[in-house]
Amino acid sequence: MMTEWERLQEMPDSEYLMRTVLPVLYQGMSIVDLERPSAPLEFLALYLLKNQDQVKLPPKAVSSRVQE
Amino acid sequence: MMTEWERLQEMPDSEYLMRTVLPVLYQGMSIVDLERPSAPLEFLALYLLKNQDQVKLPPKAVSSRVQE
Repeated sequence: MMTEWERLQEMPDSEYLMRTVLPVLYQGMSIVDLERPSAPLEFLALYLLKNQDQVKLPPKAVSSRVQE
Repeated sequence: MMTEWERLQEMPDSEYLMRTVLPVLYQGMSIVDLERPSAPLEFLALYLLKNQDQVKLPPKAVSSRVQE
């Protein structure tokens, strides 16, 4: 049986990116666009690091059949 | 007379983002999609920090009329 993590690795490109980076990336880009900081890429990178916990990913090595 | 930096601040949204973050962001996203690392947002953020010099921005406080 496939774990959630393995399923994530098999997703098509757009679905994978939507699941892992795009929600926080969109927020970050709209703030960069609004604030127009002096170092836009650095600003965006720090925003991603600061907000990465907003995206919940399945655990990597643990089986999804924990309940059994 | 407007400096290059000031002109950048006045650009419409999509043009500003294309000029400042999107070229490096697209590269980073295709690598994340290819490698599917265990911490995608952190991986992307570090890629942006490492490659931010690829985007050349006009200097902030200096006039563009340096040659005169």
